[in-house]
Amino acid sequence: MNPGEMIKDILTKKESVKNVFFVACGGSLVEFYPPKYFMDAEAKSCSAFLYSGKEFVCAAPASLGENSLVLLCSHSGKTPEVLEAAALARERGAVIVTYAGVAGTPVNEAGDYNVVYGNATEEGSHYGDSPVLLSLRLMGELLAATEEYPLLDQLKDGISKIDTVIYHAMEQVEERARVWGRAYEKEDMMYILGSGPAFGNVYGFAICSMMEMQWQHAAYIHSAEYFHGPFEVTDKNTAYVVLESSGPARCMDERAIRFLKQYGAKYEVVDAKELGADIIDERVVDYFTPLMFYKVMCVYRKELAKLRNHPLETRRYMGKVEY
Amino acid sequence: MNPGEMIKDILTKKESVKNVFFVACGGSLVEFYPPKYFMDAEAKSCSAFLYSGKEFVCAAPASLGENSLVLLCSHSGKTPEVLEAAALARERGAVIVTYAGVAGTPVNEAGDYNVVYGNATEEGSHYGDSPVLLSLRLMGELLAATEEYPLLDQLKDGISKIDTVIYHAMEQVEERARVWGRAYEKEDMMYILGSGPAFGNVYGFAICSMMEMQWQHAAYIHSAEYFHGPFEVTDKNTAYVVLESSGPARCMDERAIRFLKQYGAKYEVVDAKELGADIIDERVVDYFTPLMFYKVMCVYRKELAKLRNHPLETRRYMGKVEY
Repeated sequence: MNPGEMIKDILTKKESVKNVFFVACGGSLVEFYPPKYFMDAEAKSCSAFLYSGKEFVCAAPASLGENSLVLLCSHSGKTPEVLEAAALARERGAVIVTYAGVAGTPVNEAGDYNVVYGNATEEGSHYGDSPVLLSLRLMGELLAATEEYPLLDQLKDGISKIDTVIYHAMEQVEERARVWGRAYEKEDMMYILGSGPAFGNVYGFAICSMMEMQWQHAAYIHSAEYFHGPFEVTDKNTAYVVLESSGPARCMDERAIRFLKQYGAKYEVVDAKELGADIIDERVVDYFTPLMFYKVMCVYRKELAKLRNHPLETRRYMGKVEY
Repeated sequence: MNPGEMIKDILTKKESVKNVFFVACGGSLVEFYPPKYFMDAEAKSCSAFLYSGKEFVCAAPASLGENSLVLLCSHSGKTPEVLEAAALARERGAVIVTYAGVAGTPVNEAGDYNVVYGNATEEGSHYGDSPVLLSLRLMGELLAATEEYPLLDQLKDGISKIDTVIYHAMEQVEERARVWGRAYEKEDMMYILGSGPAFGNVYGFAICSMMEMQWQHAAYIHSAEYFHGPFEVTDKNTAYVVLESSGPARCMDERAIRFLKQYGAKYEVVDAKELGADIIDERVVDYFTPLMFYKVMCVYRKELAKLRNHPLETRRYMGKVEY
C-alpha cells in the first residue's frame, strides 16, 4: 500500500485525523523531524507532535485519541520504548503506522499499517523508500486529502529526484570529506549547526555519527539559537560543521556562517544549494535536504573513522551491556 | 491583569483558542519549555508549538490565525527575532501576549497584553511572577476555562509554594556547589542531562550558563535519548550534570543515573525530590522543578565563575560586535 492509498484507507475508517504523533528514539527520531516540521508549517488544522519514545509514555498526551494518527519508527524493529508507545496508542484507539528496518519484528507487527523499509537508506537504494520520505509523503497525502494542500505534486516530484540529488552530492563531497577528515581527526569537540527541517540531522550527526560511532564529543546547535548564547565559545580553535539549507531556512544558516567567517577558523560548510538540492522546487526543497545531508555526512564520517582507525560499528555499551 | 483575568478577557473577544505558539530565543525560549510541555500533556484539543523566533518567521505556520494565541518573551525587550514574530502574529490576527524584562521596550509594546516581569527571577523575588510560571498559569487558566482541566488549584498551590522550595533548595546546594566547582573547574566539556519539562533547563544551562557565560564547551542531552547514541562517549573522565525530576519524568533520569554510576565517575546529580520539590502535588510538580533547577544551577555556575575568575557577565560577542 503506498502512502496515498494508506491515507485513503485511514479516511474510510476515521472521520478525521485531528493530530499526528511522531514517536521514535535516537536515529529513528531524526527520520521524523522533517515530516513533523512539514506539518507545523503546512497544516491548517491537523497538529503534529514529535516525541522520544519514553517521553511519550511518561507524559501521555491528553489529545491522543481515536482521531489520532501515531507514526512509529525503529530500525531494529525491537526498540522497547517504541513498543511501549505502541501500547499506549493502541489503548487510546489511535491509528498506528509503523516503519521498521526488519520484517517480522515486534514493531513491524505493532501497527494497523506496517511498513518495512529494510536498507532504504543504504547505498544503491531508492531513497524515496526511506522512512523520512515515506512519512513525509504520507503527511503530504493527508493534507492534500483533508486540507487541500497545494504542493503534493511538488513533493512527489522531489521524491522522484532525490536519488539523483543524493548520488551526485555524495560524489561531489568525496574529496572535500578527505580534506576535512585530515584537518578534523584530532578535534576534541565538534559543534554541528543547522536549522529548519535539517535540524534533525544536526542532532543526528552529533548524537549518532559523532558520539555513538566515533566517541567524539559533540553538540548540536540551532543556527538561529547560536546567537543567543552558544556563539560565545567560538574562537579560531573550535570546530564547526554547518549544514546550510537551500530554501526558507537558509537565511538562518547564512547568518551563522557569516559569523564563523569572521570569528572562527575551523568550520566546514555543507551547502545544499551548491550540492544540487535546488533542482527540487524551492517551496518544498527544505523537506528533502535532510536526507541529502544525512547521506553526505556519511561520506564525511567515513573519512574520520578511517583516519582514526575507529570503525563506525564500534560500540562499548549499545547492545553489549545491560542498561 | 492576572492570568485568570487575561484568559477571561481573551475569551470575551475570541470564540475559541485553537492553538498557542510560544516564541522566544535562547534563555527566554527556556522559559516557555514547561508551559509548552504542560499543553502537550494536558490539553485535549488546544495545540501548542514552541519556536525559536526566526524559525517561526521562516516557516510561518499555516495554522497561525485569528484563533491563535501567541506568547512572546524577551528579557531585554528588544530581541529583533521576537519583534519579527510579533509582526507575523499581528498580520495573522492572533492574540499576542508579551513578557518583557524591561518596561517601555518594543517587545513590551508589541502585544495585546503586555507583562513586565522585571527581575522576577533574581534574588528576593516572588518567583510566581517569572515568565515561566506566569505563562504556565495562563495555560492552566485557559484549559480550566475551555476544557475543564481539573488541576488548576494544584497549579496555583504550587505557585504559592515555589518561593519556599527554591530558597530552601538554593541553600541546600551551597556546599555541594562549592565541592562541584573545585572538582569540575578544569573540565573541557560538560554534558547536561535531564528530561520532561526540565529539558528546557538542560538546554539553558548548556547554552547560556556554560557556553555563553563561561565559554565552556557543553552539550544538552535528553535522558531518554542518552541511550540511543550519546552514552557511547561516557567514560570515567567525562563530566555530566543530571537534573533529576521529581514526577513522571523521573524514571528517565534515574535510568541515566544508574548507567553513570556504573560506567561514569564524574557526574553530579541535582535531585529535585531530595531538594524538596515534592511538597508540590506530584501530578503537577514537574512543571515547577524547571525554575527550581534554574535557580539551583545559578548557585553552581557562580562557583565555577569564581574559581575560574571568569565573571558570569563576561562577553566577547553578545552586545559587543555586529552580528
